[in-house]
Amino acid sequence: MIKRPQGGLSFVLVDGQHGGRGAKNISNIVARKAIADLAEGVRDGAAALAAHDYLFNYRQGKVSATLNIVSVDMATRTIALARNNYCPTIVVTPSGLRLLDQPSNPVGIYACTKPNMIELPLQAETAVIVYTDGLATAGEYSGQTLDVPALACDLTAYGVMDAQRIADALLAAALKADDGQPNDDISVVVLTVTDEGSRDGARRLVVRAPL
Amino acid sequence: MIKRPQGGLSFVLVDGQHGGRGAKNISNIVARKAIADLAEGVRDGAAALAAHDYLFNYRQGKVSATLNIVSVDMATRTIALARNNYCPTIVVTPSGLRLLDQPSNPVGIYACTKPNMIELPLQAETAVIVYTDGLATAGEYSGQTLDVPALACDLTAYGVMDAQRIADALLAAALKADDGQPNDDISVVVLTVTDEGSRDGARRLVVRAPL
Repeated sequence: MIKRPQGGLSFVLVDGQHGGRGAKNISNIVARKAIADLAEGVRDGAAALAAHDYLFNYRQGKVSATLNIVSVDMATRTIALARNNYCPTIVVTPSGLRLLDQPSNPVGIYACTKPNMIELPLQAETAVIVYTDGLATAGEYSGQTLDVPALACDLTAYGVMDAQRIADALLAAALKADDGQPNDDISVVVLTVTDEGSRDGARRLVVRAPL
Repeated sequence: MIKRPQGGLSFVLVDGQHGGRGAKNISNIVARKAIADLAEGVRDGAAALAAHDYLFNYRQGKVSATLNIVSVDMATRTIALARNNYCPTIVVTPSGLRLLDQPSNPVGIYACTKPNMIELPLQAETAVIVYTDGLATAGEYSGQTLDVPALACDLTAYGVMDAQRIADALLAAALKADDGQPNDDISVVVLTVTDEGSRDGARRLVVRAPL
């Protein structure tokens, strides 16, 4: 996560190919490149392209990573979504649920890779759900794969609720499908825009991590 | 906030001299430099020195910023604190409250500035409270300045509680002292280590920001 110099926030989700230490290094490198550019005011599409070019040249096209950027851009009052991921992005707006599932390649392996770019107005009752393939493939060994869009539809059926509750519900469903033992890293980013007032105008960041 | 490549998290708090757009730019530059280094595995003290040198050279010693780095280092299982700030750092451990208030200069103006460095064991019932001078000077126009260490002492009198509650209580006290109209930016970072178990091993990040 990084603050945008013109106002707003960007969230960068990267999943390096395979698992373990090597994948973590690749994720770290790609995410670092993207947030460094975003922090300097580089626009989202260019930051995704640059992250691709950087990995492609650094590892000669031999390693891939999925990359999603979710930005709240206060200068344009839009939500900008950049996607280099086979997994779709789920968008819920007052007019319903949309699946952003245009063909998309991960970064790092094909020379001319570009991100899918979508902009949405920054309006209440909007939710954006971005995830890594660990969520989409949870339960595949037991034949209980999740239908993530259907779950998202259920979770927003009565209006867009708290982002944390949506993320927690998706993660809990994945853990259940995997019998509590995930086979792959699972990451979920949920952004919701609501019309709740702010009691004091403060920005709050809460992180909880097991040691 | 940034993930450390060897495991753990670092939180970087920067407050640029004066207010407004210029100060935000300076804060952005110093924080970016520090998190870029930390993300590459640079140790905390070196990252603070580098942020100072960078600002000192970039603005010829004409602009200052306070800088605090709060790191949870999983490689050494310590909490590392780097401080270039007149405001003290408050540390609560099972053996009581300590005020880290050694003389310390902000970064950017004096050639040989170094951070105050402290390491603490990563043990339960520990709290670290770091803040910008907006908290220390809240209420100074109405003669109701806060005694932040005394407040922190009260807030942890019955054991170290939720970090968010401590931060919220300090912010609420400052807003009250300023009659709801802060004269300066106020930022508070609270880190707590507890012995609560984790229900699912997941890391959670929640951000709330008014539009």
